[in-house]
Amino acid sequence: MKEPVRVAVIGAGGIGQRHCQNLAQLIPGAELAGVADVDEEAARRAAAFGRGAVARRDYQDLLADASIPAVVIATPNNTHTGIIEEAAQAGKDIFCEKPIGLDLPSVDAALAAVARQGVKLQIGFQRRFDPAYRKAREAVAAGELGPVELVVATTRDPEPRTIEPIRKSGGMFVDSTIHDLDSIRYLTGLEVQEVYAAGSNLIIPEGAREYLVDTAVTFLRLETDALAAITNSWRAVYGYDVTIEVMGAAGKIAVGFEEHASVRRFTAQGVCHDHVYWFLERFGEAFVQELAHFVECVADGREPEVSGQDGRAALVLAEAAARSLRERRPVPIREIG
Amino acid sequence: MKEPVRVAVIGAGGIGQRHCQNLAQLIPGAELAGVADVDEEAARRAAAFGRGAVARRDYQDLLADASIPAVVIATPNNTHTGIIEEAAQAGKDIFCEKPIGLDLPSVDAALAAVARQGVKLQIGFQRRFDPAYRKAREAVAAGELGPVELVVATTRDPEPRTIEPIRKSGGMFVDSTIHDLDSIRYLTGLEVQEVYAAGSNLIIPEGAREYLVDTAVTFLRLETDALAAITNSWRAVYGYDVTIEVMGAAGKIAVGFEEHASVRRFTAQGVCHDHVYWFLERFGEAFVQELAHFVECVADGREPEVSGQDGRAALVLAEAAARSLRERRPVPIREIG
Amino acid sequence: MKEPVRVAVIGAGGIGQRHCQNLAQLIPGAELAGVADVDEEAARRAAAFGRGAVARRDYQDLLADASIPAVVIATPNNTHTGIIEEAAQAGKDIFCEKPIGLDLPSVDAALAAVARQGVKLQIGFQRRFDPAYRKAREAVAAGELGPVELVVATTRDPEPRTIEPIRKSGGMFVDSTIHDLDSIRYLTGLEVQEVYAAGSNLIIPEGAREYLVDTAVTFLRLETDALAAITNSWRAVYGYDVTIEVMGAAGKIAVGFEEHASVRRFTAQGVCHDHVYWFLERFGEAFVQELAHFVECVADGREPEVSGQDGRAALVLAEAAARSLRERRPVPIREIG
Amino acid sequence: MKEPVRVAVIGAGGIGQRHCQNLAQLIPGAELAGVADVDEEAARRAAAFGRGAVARRDYQDLLADASIPAVVIATPNNTHTGIIEEAAQAGKDIFCEKPIGLDLPSVDAALAAVARQGVKLQIGFQRRFDPAYRKAREAVAAGELGPVELVVATTRDPEPRTIEPIRKSGGMFVDSTIHDLDSIRYLTGLEVQEVYAAGSNLIIPEGAREYLVDTAVTFLRLETDALAAITNSWRAVYGYDVTIEVMGAAGKIAVGFEEHASVRRFTAQGVCHDHVYWFLERFGEAFVQELAHFVECVADGREPEVSGQDGRAALVLAEAAARSLRERRPVPIREIG
Repeated sequence: MKEPVRVAVIGAGGIGQRHCQNLAQLIPGAELAGVADVDEEAARRAAAFGRGAVARRDYQDLLADASIPAVVIATPNNTHTGIIEEAAQAGKDIFCEKPIGLDLPSVDAALAAVARQGVKLQIGFQRRFDPAYRKAREAVAAGELGPVELVVATTRDPEPRTIEPIRKSGGMFVDSTIHDLDSIRYLTGLEVQEVYAAGSNLIIPEGAREYLVDTAVTFLRLETDALAAITNSWRAVYGYDVTIEVMGAAGKIAVGFEEHASVRRFTAQGVCHDHVYWFLERFGEAFVQELAHFVECVADGREPEVSGQDGRAALVLAEAAARSLRERRPVPIREIG
Repeated sequence: MKEPVRVAVIGAGGIGQRHCQNLAQLIPGAELAGVADVDEEAARRAAAFGRGAVARRDYQDLLADASIPAVVIATPNNTHTGIIEEAAQAGKDIFCEKPIGLDLPSVDAALAAVARQGVKLQIGFQRRFDPAYRKAREAVAAGELGPVELVVATTRDPEPRTIEPIRKSGGMFVDSTIHDLDSIRYLTGLEVQEVYAAGSNLIIPEGAREYLVDTAVTFLRLETDALAAITNSWRAVYGYDVTIEVMGAAGKIAVGFEEHASVRRFTAQGVCHDHVYWFLERFGEAFVQELAHFVECVADGREPEVSGQDGRAALVLAEAAARSLRERRPVPIREIG
Repeated sequence: MKEPVRVAVIGAGGIGQRHCQNLAQLIPGAELAGVADVDEEAARRAAAFGRGAVARRDYQDLLADASIPAVVIATPNNTHTGIIEEAAQAGKDIFCEKPIGLDLPSVDAALAAVARQGVKLQIGFQRRFDPAYRKAREAVAAGELGPVELVVATTRDPEPRTIEPIRKSGGMFVDSTIHDLDSIRYLTGLEVQEVYAAGSNLIIPEGAREYLVDTAVTFLRLETDALAAITNSWRAVYGYDVTIEVMGAAGKIAVGFEEHASVRRFTAQGVCHDHVYWFLERFGEAFVQELAHFVECVADGREPEVSGQDGRAALVLAEAAARSLRERRPVPIREIG
Repeated sequence: MKEPVRVAVIGAGGIGQRHCQNLAQLIPGAELAGVADVDEEAARRAAAFGRGAVARRDYQDLLADASIPAVVIATPNNTHTGIIEEAAQAGKDIFCEKPIGLDLPSVDAALAAVARQGVKLQIGFQRRFDPAYRKAREAVAAGELGPVELVVATTRDPEPRTIEPIRKSGGMFVDSTIHDLDSIRYLTGLEVQEVYAAGSNLIIPEGAREYLVDTAVTFLRLETDALAAITNSWRAVYGYDVTIEVMGAAGKIAVGFEEHASVRRFTAQGVCHDHVYWFLERFGEAFVQELAHFVECVADGREPEVSGQDGRAALVLAEAAARSLRERRPVPIREIG
């Protein structure tokens, strides 16, 4: 066996904890070297997944550790670009949770630092590592569907957050729709020319003044004039609702995953099965696979499949959606960047 | 348009009423000419579906009516063979509900009368007219599955009957399993060489002494040594449960139909849909199609697809199952007839 | 039995033929009295479904026939309003295929004639008579889903038409999307405040100059700020693709119907089932039920459930979509009428 | 973190390799200490999953290693009981693949050794660790279905083996049906009173003389007179077909898992999805969970959930099935032991 890649995780919230556990337990080629979080207790809990992983309050301690070649950034969205820059400066290969950032100038600065230092950067669009999305992409790429004509995508979270975390995340387009935006680019292999978005505050009324909608529809015109429709919601009481279908001249492919355990109950009230409830249930394995891919790229000196440019491209679309929402008009992508 | 075929219905119980309505309303080539039932009020209700249909207490009045070339027999199972004989004597073409009878001597006498008079006889195995069963048969016949190896069939009624109607019907094998027995012959095109059956009284204990089981499993060895398993129950609280799968060397085909309306409800309790509840919901259209086929055969002088021999062959298997149940051993078909 | 209602059908194209057959064979309370079509041969073929139905070149002959109290209009879309006016003038109760017309002034004139003469008018939104749509509406109306938040609807035809019939039909919004628009009003019980639509010519390029798109996405803001997304296409090679899901605060309900016969084939290549291919397969029974409802309303002097105002309301939305497509902006409904 | 439990694996064939990988990579509380196989190269390949695991030709070397408290037995079926005895003698806790053995005398000797030495013994019925089976058992145990009445179970392997490995494995009942037999005991919580089995040689004719059938149906009468039907085959070209449904007085629960990736393809040929092809795809996670359970039991001094008595009870049923096949009669369990 090769020496494992020592990886540090910055940010020990929900998804950070999971990345720590995956690195420590499920990715043979990796070793959890350390965890940093301003909440030191959380850092300690996450570090305990690995043998010998250190816990730190200040992530700069980990960036300064020469025995650590790679970091995972799982901090709040508004801190991503700053930490990417610092990590690049420190010569670390970087895995950064989506979104890459909340505004283009800081993203471009971060990407410039990455390029300058020649480090690797992978963005956490984990759906690209789900077997169903992979198969769908392969089918499209192989021409099974003919030219793509229509895409319908859905991402709905099971439980509404409160306004404060929504505000911090940058809002629905940049935090949730961005998965659909990336999936559409990934599955179709096409770029977007125009975005129209509309939203409502049906669940969290206090977001309305700041355009922090909780329910949204987003339309895309792709470069070939194929069209796409996305619907999003912060609340789907039945569970995590993520589906996508791609239709082309020769057929359609649909990715779904509503059923959790493959058990159906037949009673006098009807036939029922459960629904996958949380993104870690739906994409748990994809989270392992994306990190395994990153660790392999670090070990082998290859470029990760999901690049910083992919992170930027999805952010551009999310910004276009946000502008469309505010200005109530379709927004050409070239306006944004 | 051709002159419609005038058809009389003998027996105005549940399924008789449905045959009357189908003849009067849904089969353009037929006319409901009359209905007979010892319950004259029931006969009148059924006759009212048609314009000008007469209602009679005594079915012999209808057999004597020269303007009526064809009859449907939907009386209790123990009266089928007697009425077939009389109707054949009267020169009528005959559609008879399953089972053709309850014992082989009387069946053979009825079939002899049919042959002697040269009238047509169709048995009401309506599943043969369901589009799903048709497609399955075509797939098997076309060799899509290769040689058949295993069949698994299920028929479960939603609501348990009381002992009296069960006793009159002849019991589960002859009244319910007989559909599976015929379906297996129909779908595979194979005859049976041996039957083993076991049963229990879990629902209607008073049937136990008479071997009137409410829950049963039946095993068939087909002529090619392919095997089949059937499960039956008088009670499936979730609805009418009828499925069959045929597996061969090159694949499997499965016929199911649990969902009634194509609506799914997603709530915090799970994802639910309804279940088809009653055989008239599941096979309503097949009941129309089988009668339409009979009416066409009468009009065109063709032999119906489901013959009296098919009715007899299924009864032989049901008798073998009943003997196996009583004698607790596998029963070779050649023992029966 | 009551005397059947004598109904004449105007227009003997595809759907007109079906209406004739349904009236003659499947609706006990109706009698096909006559058929009119400029193609007299088509009229004769359709009249042959009934006994004694007359075939005419000129529908005005049928409007002049005092023995006929009711008519079905199944002529090209651009002739609907004129014939409605004439039929109303002649005192006939009217069943008119969707769309009610192609422009609001003529629709308003037709509705005025209907009101003046006190005749009944039902519009052919047959989905309202499909059991799955009915159940979905009942669930929403009963509050099972809580307040509606998001709707996603799809209508895709299996085979692309040529430009000429598309032009005549008025185009996608008025001919196809109009079903989704009505379904959304029907299922949610909500009116629409704003429409945004985008379209492309990916299949039939020659429609582009006239805004006769073949692929479209339409967004609706409902009166409660709930949102809806519709996708349409003139070509879905796998079959007729009609689905709708309504999500609310307490759950989601989804209507689908992709499977035609309930048969699945398992082979080394995978597990496959067929797809409903044509709207008459999917909604065949709904077409019977809507006419049966109309015939009952005529017989009993009741108002049909799907009114002329429903026809007008859907047309208003289709016009808003068409304007949005041309002007590339969201269109408030109050602009249209 | 606790010190990991050092586990040795005896037998480095297909499933042994998987156990090695699971212990080394996916079970945090375990460490792969060593692997033994008469094929030393296979032992080395398997040992390479862990850091520091030794590879041995002779498993007795591992039994002699005092630093190893626990072993996994994944050797050919006919060697299980002998190695269980030796491992028990050596004081090791034991995880043994199913079946526990091929004949009752040797099983009873092995169980006596286990009892004498006070070591733990878990049998590898991995389905008990599948979330779907767990949920089904919980539903039954909670009384959701009422008293159990009927069970239908299926296990079909995708690819036929040749006669030699089949002969060595002990044949279908002891090697494949045994999973269904255990699942029925597990899900219903009921013991069996009688078995009837029939089989055919449709795929591997040379097995016929030795009663090594390739296609089988097995019927069980449970202690409450509930009935069960099992169908098995060595070849299902569409993939690994494992399902079970349990019906009771109040409803039915069904466990299935045919779909592999949640992708459906819609083309002009129909709607298709893939099928899970191999048992390691279907039960991969259950194999991890059963070993994790064993490792926890070893670490905490608890008794494993799947006992040696469970292994023996399933073998008794498999022997009854084999006797029934040979003697062509239902076999009461008390005859066997």
